Amino acid sequence: MQKLVTDIKEAIIRCGLKDGMCIGFHHHLRGGDYVLNMVMDEIAKLGIKDITINASSIHDGHLPLIEHMKKGVVTGLVTAYIGPAVGKAISEGILKRPVVFQTHGYRPCGMEKGEYVPDIAFIAAPTSDPMGNCTGKTGKSACGSLGYAFTDARYAKKTVIITDNLVEYPLAEYSISEVDIDYVVCVDEIGNPEGIVSGTTKLPRNPVSLKIARYAAKAIEASGLLKDGFSFQTGAGGASLAAAGYLKEIMLNKGIKGSYALGGITGYLVDMLNTGCFKALQDVQCFDLKAVESIRENPNHMEISASHYANPMAKSSAASSLDVVVLGATEIDINFNVNVHTDSNGYIIGGSGGHSDVAQCAKMTVIVAPLLRTRHAVIKNKVKCISTPGNTVDILVTEYGISVNPVRKEWEALFKKKGVPIVDIYDLQKKAEKLTGIPEEVNRKNNKVVAEVVYRDGTILDKIYQV
Amino acid sequence: MQKLVTDIKEAIIRCGLKDGMCIGFHHHLRGGDYVLNMVMDEIAKLGIKDITINASSIHDGHLPLIEHMKKGVVTGLVTAYIGPAVGKAISEGILKRPVVFQTHGYRPCGMEKGEYVPDIAFIAAPTSDPMGNCTGKTGKSACGSLGYAFTDARYAKKTVIITDNLVEYPLAEYSISEVDIDYVVCVDEIGNPEGIVSGTTKLPRNPVSLKIARYAAKAIEASGLLKDGFSFQTGAGGASLAAAGYLKEIMLNKGIKGSYALGGITGYLVDMLNTGCFKALQDVQCFDLKAVESIRENPNHMEISASHYANPMAKSSAASSLDVVVLGATEIDINFNVNVHTDSNGYIIGGSGGHSDVAQCAKMTVIVAPLLRTRHAVIKNKVKCISTPGNTVDILVTEYGISVNPVRKEWEALFKKKGVPIVDIYDLQKKAEKLTGIPEEVNRKNNKVVAEVVYRDGTILDKIYQV
Repeated sequence: MQKLVTDIKEAIIRCGLKDGMCIGFHHHLRGGDYVLNMVMDEIAKLGIKDITINASSIHDGHLPLIEHMKKGVVTGLVTAYIGPAVGKAISEGILKRPVVFQTHGYRPCGMEKGEYVPDIAFIAAPTSDPMGNCTGKTGKSACGSLGYAFTDARYAKKTVIITDNLVEYPLAEYSISEVDIDYVVCVDEIGNPEGIVSGTTKLPRNPVSLKIARYAAKAIEASGLLKDGFSFQTGAGGASLAAAGYLKEIMLNKGIKGSYALGGITGYLVDMLNTGCFKALQDVQCFDLKAVESIRENPNHMEISASHYANPMAKSSAASSLDVVVLGATEIDINFNVNVHTDSNGYIIGGSGGHSDVAQCAKMTVIVAPLLRTRHAVIKNKVKCISTPGNTVDILVTEYGISVNPVRKEWEALFKKKGVPIVDIYDLQKKAEKLTGIPEEVNRKNNKVVAEVVYRDGTILDKIYQV
Repeated sequence: MQKLVTDIKEAIIRCGLKDGMCIGFHHHLRGGDYVLNMVMDEIAKLGIKDITINASSIHDGHLPLIEHMKKGVVTGLVTAYIGPAVGKAISEGILKRPVVFQTHGYRPCGMEKGEYVPDIAFIAAPTSDPMGNCTGKTGKSACGSLGYAFTDARYAKKTVIITDNLVEYPLAEYSISEVDIDYVVCVDEIGNPEGIVSGTTKLPRNPVSLKIARYAAKAIEASGLLKDGFSFQTGAGGASLAAAGYLKEIMLNKGIKGSYALGGITGYLVDMLNTGCFKALQDVQCFDLKAVESIRENPNHMEISASHYANPMAKSSAASSLDVVVLGATEIDINFNVNVHTDSNGYIIGGSGGHSDVAQCAKMTVIVAPLLRTRHAVIKNKVKCISTPGNTVDILVTEYGISVNPVRKEWEALFKKKGVPIVDIYDLQKKAEKLTGIPEEVNRKNNKVVAEVVYRDGTILDKIYQV
């Protein structure tokens, strides 16, 4: 029972990788991940072709993927997010088969149903023992939660741990158990610590973001949901994070004891835990060093799997108890459909992550966006790509006020009573068009589909075309 | 998404229990468990019949089962252990279909293969939140590890948590996640704390046990396995536990730093952890209060699932790294086959638990037994039931010396060098027969099979007949 092998090449060979197979990666090392590139380089050297990658996310640190796609080493990609640099290349048509965009919640559900189950999963693990008991909480490349990798370990046919901190058996504080691990490889570095997590996440100072955030917090307060037991998710970007800042003030002033915050966890949510705004954090992914330290030290900072986060086939998930979520958008349309996959030129610059998962689950889904973004109006007649269906969105918050989705009219009365500025989405659209002119329709060069967006119920929500 | 239901009856009805279905229980509340009886009473009242119970173990607190078997409410039983009182009734033929005796390691493997998958699992949980995140570490009925119940949560079609300590969502330090839980029921008491765990396990004072233990420790020392990195499992009974006591002395005197102790964990192994004999405990089940306290407080005291303990289909388990295991026997034969299922009259009084799992895995399997037990010779020509095959047993330790299994002759030279008293198993048998006379063959009254013993590879190892 010897799992420890010399190098990645040996692990690939022992696992029997062949042309046409599917392999899995998780993205907890984010922009600093070396593992995907190291594995793909070995696969390319071995002359293996036609690989499908099922990765929870692809970041711009994975730029070498572009060459592997051009050469046919990689011909398929299943993921919840693609950074703009790799996204641009894919939008220009370098990948043989269309990307399958899933959500973070659907990924484990899909594997449970047998879709894109990795023949081999490669799990970057900041600490592991020689049998594969591993964790992300310790080690020089610590990334905190390994939530998305739980899925790979559980469903992949073969699983390889790649670590740069091999410790004696048994690793007592394991997150993933040896029962699912076939091989363990120790390398010098699994990632660049600076790219894995940022320092402490700081609140934005941009006045537009702050105004949006203030309106969002006001709407949440007016909704009646902000009371003892309150649960909350927010993104890590500008206005979303600032909204958490205003909520913190309100919660501390009023002595509101929330239940939990969910999602990718930042130091800012850690502060809210430590000051008693929440009794727990449910963490599927850490965004900064403060979150990594907290999940290691604080037993109320929970590590949860992707299924526990938002699997729609789970008997419940943390998402299913969620009160409010604050999310961003690159575009939103007059039917409240949200695009987080492409920019306004149609280039892939992101993906759902858990966006549409939590939007569907939360009692109130708040989209925060500035009216204009790089001289484009954010509100469209029709978004270029539906990432999150409008019927799961409650309100849009801009610096000019709040639009309530007509399907969730019940909020309007509450908002009016509390003096929350309400504005019709058509009026917002007109206001933007006054400033920018009516946006030109970007003409599709051809009908080649470069990506399909799969919703959390497994149906195809939209398609993305070659630019 | 409302999982909390009024009572056990409502949970049973909502799960759709029907005649002929299979239901699951775990045995972490041991002799103090109320849950199996409460559930079976409701099932009987509902008039449901022909139920198969798949329980990790059955204890004498489950005596009411006998009536349910007589009345046809329960017609099948899959388990790794049956206490003597229920065992006697089954040996007398009250159950319609033969008991399927599995091992603790095979139970999750069997479910993975689709054998006796519970239609509904009922998990007694000392603490749970309303969505079913639960743990055994806290609450008035705390039992420590919930290792065996991990299997039920993962594989059962429906899973019901029954708790007497309902806490606010989310329970941060959960052992079993809400993703697998359908319903939660809160009752007054899930068990009798006195029956759940004993106080602190004490070493035996019986001179025969102590002599056997001393010999066992001497053999383990002589084997060369007792060095830094040593891993060990022992039972909680008399000589096995005393052997751990002598090992502790040797390890402390020589400054040996072991790796881990495994299995059902007692306070005695906790002491060995705390004094540095081991760096970790891998705990699938706690035997006493000291172990419960330790698993709650000490991060080096690991909670592991039944699969992580000894699932033969797992890619590795704690058992597969095991150096030495010390186990008991009700009978052993001249081919070193061990019986832990029946007494010498053929009555069911126990079961394998993890006996044959760890016997197969460990580098050295030590059976400890007195030469005579209640005036019967322990060594037979042929055991009444093969629980653990002789080819997985290395040595038998009695108060008259140590017999080495001829298939593991390599130990003999080592033992002779270190002055460990070796005695041929035939000579031991003759010595016993001089004291007790040659044992009479108990004649089988009839050929009705009351139980089948399934080995950890899924094959039938032996059958137990009606008495």
